[in-house]
Amino acid sequence: MRNISEDTITQAVLAAMSDCRNERLRTVMTSLVQHLHSFAREVRLTESEWQYAINFLTEVGHITDDKRQEFILLSDTLGLSMLTTTQNNRKPPECTEATVLGPFFVEGAPEYQNGEDISNGAAGLPCFVSGHVRGLRGEPLPGATIEVWQSDEDGYYDVQYAAPRQAEAEHRARGRLRTLPDGRFHFRSILAEAYPIPHDGPVGRMLDALGRHPWRPAHLHFWINAHGYEPLITHVFRNGDQYLDSDAVFGVRSTLVADWVEHPPGVAPDGTAMDTTFYTLDYDFVLNPDGHAR
Amino acid sequence: MRNISEDTITQAVLAAMSDCRNERLRTVMTSLVQHLHSFAREVRLTESEWQYAINFLTEVGHITDDKRQEFILLSDTLGLSMLTTTQNNRKPPECTEATVLGPFFVEGAPEYQNGEDISNGAAGLPCFVSGHVRGLRGEPLPGATIEVWQSDEDGYYDVQYAAPRQAEAEHRARGRLRTLPDGRFHFRSILAEAYPIPHDGPVGRMLDALGRHPWRPAHLHFWINAHGYEPLITHVFRNGDQYLDSDAVFGVRSTLVADWVEHPPGVAPDGTAMDTTFYTLDYDFVLNPDGHAR
Ligand SMILES: [Fe+2]
Ligand SMILES: [Fe+2]
Repeated sequence: MRNISEDTITQAVLAAMSDCRNERLRTVMTSLVQHLHSFAREVRLTESEWQYAINFLTEVGHITDDKRQEFILLSDTLGLSMLTTTQNNRKPPECTEATVLGPFFVEGAPEYQNGEDISNGAAGLPCFVSGHVRGLRGEPLPGATIEVWQSDEDGYYDVQYAAPRQAEAEHRARGRLRTLPDGRFHFRSILAEAYPIPHDGPVGRMLDALGRHPWRPAHLHFWINAHGYEPLITHVFRNGDQYLDSDAVFGVRSTLVADWVEHPPGVAPDGTAMDTTFYTLDYDFVLNPDGHAR
Repeated sequence: MRNISEDTITQAVLAAMSDCRNERLRTVMTSLVQHLHSFAREVRLTESEWQYAINFLTEVGHITDDKRQEFILLSDTLGLSMLTTTQNNRKPPECTEATVLGPFFVEGAPEYQNGEDISNGAAGLPCFVSGHVRGLRGEPLPGATIEVWQSDEDGYYDVQYAAPRQAEAEHRARGRLRTLPDGRFHFRSILAEAYPIPHDGPVGRMLDALGRHPWRPAHLHFWINAHGYEPLITHVFRNGDQYLDSDAVFGVRSTLVADWVEHPPGVAPDGTAMDTTFYTLDYDFVLNPDGHAR
């Protein structure tokens, strides 16, 4: 420790943790330090690049507030979020796959009854969504909680609306409902559209410098909880979207791609006479019983 | 890209950078993504640990402002700063070694003449510092710029003073001077004391969880520039300090440890009659000519 050099620094940092009594923390930090140092050595990180990274992270921190989480965007766009999701959600192939939570989930979304319109004034073509929640052996799961959230036709979630509009627009296109006795759910919302992740900050500049675009293919977010089953956080992606093969956050899994069916004006599934084009989506979810990881 | 899994995610992220036209950026980011993913796989990072990390980085960002740089503290305490410093400052063994810049350097420190007192009211026992700046072949370097900065007897740099005290105390115990025609410099300041890095924030909590202390052995910071030579950013450490073998930022190199000599009240090197104990430090610096890296 009294003679730190390029060759001894990593060992010195690891040795400094020898009094750590949290075994897991020590394991995680040991690996983190080793990989961080290996990275710096491998690219022979320069002092100006180090300073650039310090400034970049500072900007990521300063743009982050209770509405915007730029560190999650950074993790998402570097694939760390999806890697963490997949390695913690191994399950039998019959189960619905998980994908990233993303930065737009909000606690305390309003409760809806099946059949209600969760858009709450968010702009977009009408879309009627239905499906079943079942267990691994096909058993229907009544009373399962479904959180659903999505962006509007301009690609914005309610939490992204500018301040004055946001106050009057709390909880648009997001809600919470429960499955019926046969495991079915159905609600009205709006058509999911592709949208760019917030790209007016440091992560957007990073994507630009890397020659990457900020777009995500159209999707609906779901977070489903049923007693005795693993929670499922996932999306359903809209088939045909031009960004299915280049999702900015690497969240697409082919089993999660579904057809949104376009209908001319006429009678909607819930009996409403529609005078505009509308869409329907039917998608079933299969949950993994607790303690049944692959 | 349409079927991301635990096994394909890393390749998908790397493939997304294939349009990056900045070759160096692509090299750095490729290595960063590979090591980040290897880390997450190696420890099988959980979703709650990921969330903890997001929250931790958010706190690091939010406590950082123009006076406090918690990201630099994080880099320093994980040894990344010292690794970056050493691998970018390879030079012949006769040259003075470099160490970390640290978070307390400030642009625009006041100019002093040799012999002046740079403490500017910062509290501490008097200390008279002198030395030479020379080149690799022993040639004196007149007119070299020396930035020097240090903490006071309470362990605080001027930039850490609480707001009201700070306004009246700008630039204490830091200054800028030039070497004399024979390469010599000398100034009065205060005795360097061991101090803890700021540890009331997330990095302090991290050190605590790791069973580490936040202390740095007593030192003086120097940043020396001479035309035709590589800049030298380094410290001189005080021999006998109890933290020389456990510096919280891993900055100690044995060649940078020097004796601060204690003197009873009497006549100081500059002729001043001192009625308190005072100290002297004499240390010579050897700079590496430009383009002469090892
Ligand atoms: Fe989304
Ligand atoms: Fe210092």
